Amino acid sequence: MTMDYQKILQEIEVEINALPDDGTVANYIPELAKVSPDRFGMHLTTVRNEHYAVGDSEVKFSIQSISKVFSLAMAFSLLGEKLWKRVGVEPSGNPFNSIVQLEYENGIPRNPFVNAGALVVVDVLLSELKDPEADLFAFVRSSTGSNDVSYNSVVAQSEKETGHLNTAFVHMMKAKGNIVNEADEILDFYYKQCSIEMTCRELAEAFLHFGDNGLAYNHAGFSLTTSQVKRLNALMLSCGFYDESGQFAFKVGLAGKSGVGGGIAAVYPEEFAVAVWSPKLNEKGNSVRGFHSLELLTTKTESSIF
Amino acid sequence: MTMDYQKILQEIEVEINALPDDGTVANYIPELAKVSPDRFGMHLTTVRNEHYAVGDSEVKFSIQSISKVFSLAMAFSLLGEKLWKRVGVEPSGNPFNSIVQLEYENGIPRNPFVNAGALVVVDVLLSELKDPEADLFAFVRSSTGSNDVSYNSVVAQSEKETGHLNTAFVHMMKAKGNIVNEADEILDFYYKQCSIEMTCRELAEAFLHFGDNGLAYNHAGFSLTTSQVKRLNALMLSCGFYDESGQFAFKVGLAGKSGVGGGIAAVYPEEFAVAVWSPKLNEKGNSVRGFHSLELLTTKTESSIF
Amino acid sequence: MTMDYQKILQEIEVEINALPDDGTVANYIPELAKVSPDRFGMHLTTVRNEHYAVGDSEVKFSIQSISKVFSLAMAFSLLGEKLWKRVGVEPSGNPFNSIVQLEYENGIPRNPFVNAGALVVVDVLLSELKDPEADLFAFVRSSTGSNDVSYNSVVAQSEKETGHLNTAFVHMMKAKGNIVNEADEILDFYYKQCSIEMTCRELAEAFLHFGDNGLAYNHAGFSLTTSQVKRLNALMLSCGFYDESGQFAFKVGLAGKSGVGGGIAAVYPEEFAVAVWSPKLNEKGNSVRGFHSLELLTTKTESSIF
Amino acid sequence: MTMDYQKILQEIEVEINALPDDGTVANYIPELAKVSPDRFGMHLTTVRNEHYAVGDSEVKFSIQSISKVFSLAMAFSLLGEKLWKRVGVEPSGNPFNSIVQLEYENGIPRNPFVNAGALVVVDVLLSELKDPEADLFAFVRSSTGSNDVSYNSVVAQSEKETGHLNTAFVHMMKAKGNIVNEADEILDFYYKQCSIEMTCRELAEAFLHFGDNGLAYNHAGFSLTTSQVKRLNALMLSCGFYDESGQFAFKVGLAGKSGVGGGIAAVYPEEFAVAVWSPKLNEKGNSVRGFHSLELLTTKTESSIF
Repeated sequence: MTMDYQKILQEIEVEINALPDDGTVANYIPELAKVSPDRFGMHLTTVRNEHYAVGDSEVKFSIQSISKVFSLAMAFSLLGEKLWKRVGVEPSGNPFNSIVQLEYENGIPRNPFVNAGALVVVDVLLSELKDPEADLFAFVRSSTGSNDVSYNSVVAQSEKETGHLNTAFVHMMKAKGNIVNEADEILDFYYKQCSIEMTCRELAEAFLHFGDNGLAYNHAGFSLTTSQVKRLNALMLSCGFYDESGQFAFKVGLAGKSGVGGGIAAVYPEEFAVAVWSPKLNEKGNSVRGFHSLELLTTKTESSIF
Repeated sequence: MTMDYQKILQEIEVEINALPDDGTVANYIPELAKVSPDRFGMHLTTVRNEHYAVGDSEVKFSIQSISKVFSLAMAFSLLGEKLWKRVGVEPSGNPFNSIVQLEYENGIPRNPFVNAGALVVVDVLLSELKDPEADLFAFVRSSTGSNDVSYNSVVAQSEKETGHLNTAFVHMMKAKGNIVNEADEILDFYYKQCSIEMTCRELAEAFLHFGDNGLAYNHAGFSLTTSQVKRLNALMLSCGFYDESGQFAFKVGLAGKSGVGGGIAAVYPEEFAVAVWSPKLNEKGNSVRGFHSLELLTTKTESSIF
Repeated sequence: MTMDYQKILQEIEVEINALPDDGTVANYIPELAKVSPDRFGMHLTTVRNEHYAVGDSEVKFSIQSISKVFSLAMAFSLLGEKLWKRVGVEPSGNPFNSIVQLEYENGIPRNPFVNAGALVVVDVLLSELKDPEADLFAFVRSSTGSNDVSYNSVVAQSEKETGHLNTAFVHMMKAKGNIVNEADEILDFYYKQCSIEMTCRELAEAFLHFGDNGLAYNHAGFSLTTSQVKRLNALMLSCGFYDESGQFAFKVGLAGKSGVGGGIAAVYPEEFAVAVWSPKLNEKGNSVRGFHSLELLTTKTESSIF
Repeated sequence: MTMDYQKILQEIEVEINALPDDGTVANYIPELAKVSPDRFGMHLTTVRNEHYAVGDSEVKFSIQSISKVFSLAMAFSLLGEKLWKRVGVEPSGNPFNSIVQLEYENGIPRNPFVNAGALVVVDVLLSELKDPEADLFAFVRSSTGSNDVSYNSVVAQSEKETGHLNTAFVHMMKAKGNIVNEADEILDFYYKQCSIEMTCRELAEAFLHFGDNGLAYNHAGFSLTTSQVKRLNALMLSCGFYDESGQFAFKVGLAGKSGVGGGIAAVYPEEFAVAVWSPKLNEKGNSVRGFHSLELLTTKTESSIF
């Protein structure tokens, strides 16, 4: 396949700018609400190490829930299949912050991308690692190939102060026996992880490793087999977009993950990874223009995995 | 890719036979409970028109919910994107026969593969077609390339007599305004559709059309664009295995659909379609050996779409 | 206690008329929507056979769910404590037509006053009686002391045509094994029962028997012990007002039952029974002015049972 | 009414001892599990200041959820009807510790006797009072007429260490905006309140005030009108026994409240209050023998309020 990806990204940018300006910047985290709503960036990188970009692709933004993919990769590397005793692999069929299902299913979150599941993943990291924070940053820096990756402590603090529902999740799961570490330690780590800032380019680089099966997956000592990487991709496709995961599979057809910072990263195995950023979200919590850009991308490149 | 698929199917058959004999034949439909639990067949056909098979691959069995893919293809062809106003594309996150979600979501089923969704699809066919039953059989016969496809009226009758929950679904959705036709007509059609009998070979043939993007999808006048076919595949991946869809994506990594008759059909785009049959089901309603066979197949052939 | 009940009823009528005219006549049953919204009647009768009334107390109206008390009294008389294996005695904590709880609790309705529970009660009458319809009318005529009690067949037909949710309930419970008779027979009987028409005077007479423990409870051969009558009263207090039962106990403090025709009947043991009618309903399905009238009555007479 | 209450209590004790020894001492609070399971005491006191007792009626036990009645009386006295904007008066229809309903109903607990509701009541006390703990003990000492009432700090500590679900409730409600004070302060106060120890005699004394309408209700400055006291009684009847409130109304017919320490207190207005203690609980969390004793009491004395 030879594609003029740069031309396609430019077409997408034009078409996106012609769209009505829908959606709302996440406002439940006060610090995030300060981001300029008009930002738009996109970066695509291929297994041949080509790079294509438009817009604010080199501007750092809060990756939020996209970070759950990184902590999950680490925990999967540490525990292997045993991880799935503590968190499921099924789509939730409910908004990403629902506590109902957790109660009915005995404190086992449906999957690692609902908040409760991501908190269990953090609990695993805290139990298994001597210096989990150092390991996390070593891992994401190795993944992105950039040492300039850290978290925004103002955002982390802002999230902690408003994150009562996540606190409820942790205590609920502690009540059901699926949380080992102290609530405060888990939440501190979780908010740091969510407040990591990356550019579209860095995210695309990190996600390319999920699609380049010719290369071993190993970052800062956390390694996954090809089969495990494919399983992570399957999880992203089934569960990566909150209660809109089916829509993303249906309309875009790539494995990916979104965050309420407005970012989406996705991978087309054996060919490319792509990251897009636009802060305005739809009512499901996904970037309106990010989602639409990727729908345009797979339509124009016929790169749906199906 | 050149693979010795015949050798691989034979290996799978051997490995499957060595497994403990778990699961239970569906017994809520009395007529289905009469099937010999030891049946096992598998058929794989490629876009190059090659055919590989082991076991009872030429024996007819009740395709049950696999039929939902066919009626959906017809309704999608008839209504296009308007179909999704009446049925969603999100995984259900609940067992396949749950009425709870339907109540909370105003009679709009989560997707066309939960029973309620398949009943809405039938409602569409009854409204749009002059002779929907004739069209259904023309469609499946064209899809399979076999005129020898019909339904088992004893099974259909047996299902109707015990299908109180489906009757409840239809009336519930009528109460919410999402069903137009008479309950009895919908249910009669639905049970005929579910009672269609096919062989593994016929199922594999029919599913190959979902993966051969070089050929137009058009059967008995019902046509889909390549993009629409890919969307059907996405729906199968997200929602095709009841409350185990995530597991199937995770472990097998193909778009597919299962039925309580013990069949599973799946497609690996641009390369092959496969059907497997083994009547014993796990507690989620999926064929134990069918699921495991396909996990072995994609592991051995490295054919996960991810 | 000597009270000038006539003066109190007149005060209530004046105060009620001074209130803002809130609420809506039930419109999901087209025939009921034709009733004049301004009707207001109230009748109080004592264990000393005194009668007090204001307004349209002698006008017939559709008693709707109040009829559930009568069919329940008959079924309780027939089965005794065995009845409670098929229907519970707990408040539902959900709107009166919720199917969710039914699914979680295996087809056993929470109590006999939710629609599903009333349908089980009808199922009992159909199984136990040779001519259940004749028995029902013999019972209600004996209870009211009036031969002029029958049902409105236009309302019954109107309800049947729009009662898809009740049809769903019956089939759901049949699926779970808690319904024996044919759905159509149960629903026909149920809609006749709900379409019974009475005056406030007749309702008050019938309810006085639940509060006059000096007299045996026996109508048309259906008898209850004093203890059983008290248990019916307890059920009315806990569950008689849909999702507003707590409010009624809290603000009025009497055992009673409401219907979407705008009627409420209630009993103050050893002293009086009262019925009130005003068609406009609040969003919980209870008569706005009926509820308020009874709150005024128990405040003025200090007759809360607590 | 002249009753030989002493004889009746003795009959009850004999009959209770002849029953099979069912139930289990609460074991989720380790300290409570140490109580001897064979304890049984009962105390009845009348509005004429008569006292009747059998068994361990003078032994202190952990009143647990019965304490919710006392904190509610205080909060109701402080806020009046405004209290019901923050907590409902409807039965929950779910087990006492369910978080599901809370999520669906925006953090407004169904009633003040589910744990979430009792935590909101505590939040009110912490906001409204300068020294809430001193006020609580002044109130309960005045209610019981005994200065010898305090809490067991070992039990309070034991509850706090295992009370993850209550912590989840508080944070869930904070997320929804219905909790003002710090989680830790609320929980500390709540566990002290639940760990209050009383004898059957003290409990009966305190509950008699809810049934003696000739006397003003005023303890340590917290006063309620007669109408407010009746409303508290209505709440106890509708919601006082977790998911068995309907059963208690149905079989006993008194306003009352139970606790997982095995105590139940109840009131028959204008005549008596009664408290019973037996530590073994049924699966709904109510004292098996306590419940049965009160059923015998109202049967023998015909004292159901209905």
